[in-house]
Amino acid sequence: MLEKIDLSVKVEKAVYKKAMAEMEEKLGVLQRSCKEAGIPVMILFDGMGAAGKGTQINRLIQVMDPRGFSVYASNRPTEEEQYRPFLWSYWTKTPAKGRIAIFDRSWYRRVQVDRFEGLTADQELPHAFQDIASFEKQLSDGGTVIIKLFLHISKEEQKKRFKKLAASKETAWRVSDSDWIRNKEYERYLRINEEMLEQTDTEYAPWTIIEATDKNYAAMKIMSTVTSRLEYELEKKKEEKTAEKGQKKKTAPSDKYKNGVLSGVDLSKHLTPSKYKKELDELQKRIEILHSEIYRLRIPVVIGFEGWDAGGKGGAIRRLTSRLDPRGYQVNPTASPNDIEKVHHYLWRFWNNVPKAGHIAIFDRTWYGRVMVERIEGFCTEAEWKRAYQEINEMEAHMANAGAVVLKFWLHIDKDEQERRFKERMENPAKQWKITDEDWRNREKWDLYEEAVNEMLVRTSTTYAPWIVVEGNDKCYARVKVVRTVVEALEAKIKEVKKAQKSKDA
Amino acid sequence: MLEKIDLSVKVEKAVYKKAMAEMEEKLGVLQRSCKEAGIPVMILFDGMGAAGKGTQINRLIQVMDPRGFSVYASNRPTEEEQYRPFLWSYWTKTPAKGRIAIFDRSWYRRVQVDRFEGLTADQELPHAFQDIASFEKQLSDGGTVIIKLFLHISKEEQKKRFKKLAASKETAWRVSDSDWIRNKEYERYLRINEEMLEQTDTEYAPWTIIEATDKNYAAMKIMSTVTSRLEYELEKKKEEKTAEKGQKKKTAPSDKYKNGVLSGVDLSKHLTPSKYKKELDELQKRIEILHSEIYRLRIPVVIGFEGWDAGGKGGAIRRLTSRLDPRGYQVNPTASPNDIEKVHHYLWRFWNNVPKAGHIAIFDRTWYGRVMVERIEGFCTEAEWKRAYQEINEMEAHMANAGAVVLKFWLHIDKDEQERRFKERMENPAKQWKITDEDWRNREKWDLYEEAVNEMLVRTSTTYAPWIVVEGNDKCYARVKVVRTVVEALEAKIKEVKKAQKSKDA
Repeated sequence: MLEKIDLSVKVEKAVYKKAMAEMEEKLGVLQRSCKEAGIPVMILFDGMGAAGKGTQINRLIQVMDPRGFSVYASNRPTEEEQYRPFLWSYWTKTPAKGRIAIFDRSWYRRVQVDRFEGLTADQELPHAFQDIASFEKQLSDGGTVIIKLFLHISKEEQKKRFKKLAASKETAWRVSDSDWIRNKEYERYLRINEEMLEQTDTEYAPWTIIEATDKNYAAMKIMSTVTSRLEYELEKKKEEKTAEKGQKKKTAPSDKYKNGVLSGVDLSKHLTPSKYKKELDELQKRIEILHSEIYRLRIPVVIGFEGWDAGGKGGAIRRLTSRLDPRGYQVNPTASPNDIEKVHHYLWRFWNNVPKAGHIAIFDRTWYGRVMVERIEGFCTEAEWKRAYQEINEMEAHMANAGAVVLKFWLHIDKDEQERRFKERMENPAKQWKITDEDWRNREKWDLYEEAVNEMLVRTSTTYAPWIVVEGNDKCYARVKVVRTVVEALEAKIKEVKKAQKSKDA
Repeated sequence: MLEKIDLSVKVEKAVYKKAMAEMEEKLGVLQRSCKEAGIPVMILFDGMGAAGKGTQINRLIQVMDPRGFSVYASNRPTEEEQYRPFLWSYWTKTPAKGRIAIFDRSWYRRVQVDRFEGLTADQELPHAFQDIASFEKQLSDGGTVIIKLFLHISKEEQKKRFKKLAASKETAWRVSDSDWIRNKEYERYLRINEEMLEQTDTEYAPWTIIEATDKNYAAMKIMSTVTSRLEYELEKKKEEKTAEKGQKKKTAPSDKYKNGVLSGVDLSKHLTPSKYKKELDELQKRIEILHSEIYRLRIPVVIGFEGWDAGGKGGAIRRLTSRLDPRGYQVNPTASPNDIEKVHHYLWRFWNNVPKAGHIAIFDRTWYGRVMVERIEGFCTEAEWKRAYQEINEMEAHMANAGAVVLKFWLHIDKDEQERRFKERMENPAKQWKITDEDWRNREKWDLYEEAVNEMLVRTSTTYAPWIVVEGNDKCYARVKVVRTVVEALEAKIKEVKKAQKSKDA
C-alpha cells in the first residue's frame, strides 16, 4: 500500500488555513455530539520516524475539549506490562463511552518495530496479527470507533529531517541510533510496515495513509479523516435508533483527500527503437530459459494485465509470450461473465483458471473488474466492491502461499495519448475492430476510473502480489519494463526455491 | 467442544419415523424453494471414522431431487490437485445458484487427518485456518449457505464398529490401518478435531455436532439442522427483499436438537469424610509448593468459578486458597457492573484483573455472565451474547498464548439438591445472608439456565482453556476434584515450561 503512494502532494497556505478553520470548528461540535451519544473513540497515530506524529497529535488536540480525551504514548513495556498478556495494557486504556483516547504508536509495536528488531519471532506473527484483529473487532462490535492513521514519508525526506534534528543541540536527543538504522534499512522497515497494513486493514478498523511530506497537507487530511469518520458514525448511530421506521442506507464516510498513485507516474519515460530491440531480444532469450526452469521446479506463475483502453496490454502480452513454449502457458482473456459464470461467485471463473504448478497463466483483464467496471457501472453493490479488495488479497495470498509468483501490471497512459491511439485505430482499417463506441463511452468516465484505479492500486498492491504501474505512453519502454519485471521476478523466485531446497537437503 | 458432549442420546423408533416423515416432506419443498430463490448450498459431513457419514449422506439425499445436488468425496489429492493451490479443487466445486453440493470430508482435511499424520506442519496451521476462514467467508458473503456437520462417536463405540466391519468379508476392506491408528490414538485425534472446531466455528459457517451413537437420532438431527437452516435462509432472503418497507428482525434458525453436557454428568459421585480429609490435606500441601514454583517460573494462572446458586463455589474456593501465600493470589468477586464498568466494554473489568505472571487470579463468577444471566434476563441483545462466545474464546486464547494456565469450573448440582441447600440456608441463622429472593426467582428459570449452560460449555470449552464440570451434590467429592484439577494443571504447565527452558538452554 505504501510504496506506490505519491508523497509529493501539498497544499497552499491559504487553502489550508480556510479548510482547517472550518474543520476545527466542526471537530469541536462533533466531540460534544460523540460525548452525548456515548461513543468511545480511539485515534491511533503510527508511521515512519520523523513523519511528525507528535506535531500532528498536538494540532489535533488543540481544538478538542481537554476534559474529553487522553493521550497515551507507547514506550518500551514497563515491568507491570511485561508480566501480563500483551493486550492487557491497551485494554485497560480503552476509552469509556463518550471519551477519546489518542495513541502515539500502539498495539502495532509487536508487528512493526519489535519485528524489525528481531524481538518478535516469525512464528509469533500469525498470532500477533490475530490478536490485533480480535482486539479491534471486539471493541468495534462493542461500539468503539477506531481511527488508524499512518504517517508516511520517503527515505530521503526522513534522512533530511533526522539530519536537521541532529544538527541542533535542543533536538539532537530525539534522533536515536535505532532511528538511523531504520533509515539506513528503510526498504526492509517499509516492507514490514506494508505487511502490517495488509494484514490489519479491515472494514471495521481501516487504515488511512497520510502523506506527511507537507505538514499542512498532513494536518488537513488528518482533520478531514477524523471529522468525516465521526460524522459518519454519529449518523449511523442515529439511523440505527430510527431503523424501525423505514431504513435509510448508510453513506460511507466521505474521503476527500485520497491517496494518489497515478499522479506520481512519470509518463515521459521512453526508449529508442534500437535500444528497445536490443533489450527486448536479450530479455526474451532469458525468459525462454527461465520458463523451462520454472517448469522443472514446479513454480506456478500468475500474471494479470489491466490498464486504460488502448494502454497496450495486447502488445505487451505478445512480447512476453512470443518465445515461450505454448504448452507451458495460457492466456485467459476476461470478457463479461457468461451465463454459467453469472450463477457462481465472481471469483469462481478465475479459480478455474489457476495455473498448474510449473505453468504460467496470463490474464488479459482480471478479477479486478470487480473494483473497476463493476464498481463504476453499478454491476455490483457498494458493499460488494468494497469487500472485494480483501477477497482479492486473500485469493492472491493463497496462491502466493502455494508458491506462486503473482504479478499485476497496470498499463498507464494519459488521456491525450489515449485519444491519439483511438483516432489512429479508427483511421487504420486493420485496427478498426479494436475500437468500439463503448471505448469512447468509458473514456468519458476517465475521472471515475482514475479514482477507482488509485484506490485499487493502494489497497491491493501487496508484498506477495505487487502491482507494477507501467509508464505506457512510449510503447517500447512499456514492453521492455513488463518483460524485464517478469524476468526479474522469476529469477528471484527460482533463487529462493533453490536455496530452500538446498537447506532442506543439508 | 467435543469432549463434554453427552453421546448417549437416542430416539425411539416411532418418534423417529414420525419426525423424519414430516421433515423429509419439508426438505423436498425447501430444496425447490432454494432453487427458485437461487441460493447455493454447501453441506459438509465430517467427523470420526465409522461415525456413519456415508449412511447419513445417503439418507439425506434419498429425499432430494437428484437433479439439484452433487456429492463429492474427498480422497488423497490427485495430481491435478497436487499441482495447484489447496483451495482450488474446492473452489471449482462450489455450487451454482440454486444447487446443493454435499461434501464427504472436505477442505478440513489439511487441519485434521493430514495434521494427525504429520503431513501438515505446525507452522502451516495458522495459514491453513486463515485459508478456511476466508474461503467460507467469501462464499457466505456471496450468498452461499454453508452447513457443517460433525458426526461424533466415542472411542469405545468406534472400536466396536471397526471390529464389526473387520469381522465380515464384505466390509473388512473399509477399515484401514490408519483407521485403527486413529482409534488407538483417539485422544490425540480428538484434540486435533477440537482445535479444528474451535478455530472454524464462525457466525457465518457454524458447526453442528451430531451425536452419532444412535443412527436414527443422528439422521433426525441432521435433517432438522438442514431444514431449519434452509428455512431460516429463505426467510432472510425474503426479508432482505422487503427490507425497504419496515424491517423485521430475523429470527435465528431454530435448533431443536441441542447438544447436552449436563445430562451426562454423574451426580452420585461422592467421597467419605475420612478419605476427603486425607486427600484434601495431601493436595493442599502439593499446591502450596506449586504456588511458589509458578511464582519463580513466572506462570500466570486464571481460575474461574461458575455454577448453580448454592453449588458450592465459595467452599471450593476456600479449600483451594487456604494454604496459599496471600501475596500471590487474588479472589475477584464479580457482582453486577458498577457505573464505571457500565460505560466500558463488558470484558474491560476482567482485563483489568488479569494476573501478573507468577500470580493466581481467582474469579468468583466471571465474564460468562454475558452468556448466562445477561442472556436470560435480556441485559444484552441476542447479537451481543451470541458474539460473546467467540470474544471470550479469543480473550482466553490470548492469555493462554501469553503462557497462562486458564481453568473454568462449573459446579453442578441437581434441582433437588439445590432446594435442600436453600432450605438449609433459610433455617440456619449463620447462613441466612447467603439466600435471597433472587435466588428463588433464578431457580424458577432453571431450564433456561440449563440450556444456556449447555451451550456455553460446548462452545467455550477449549483445548487451551477447558471447562471442568464438577459433580457437586457431594461437597467433599467436589472440593477434592477442584483442588486436584488445579494441582494437575499446574504440574503439567510447570513440566512444559521447564522442558521448554531446557531445550532453549541446550
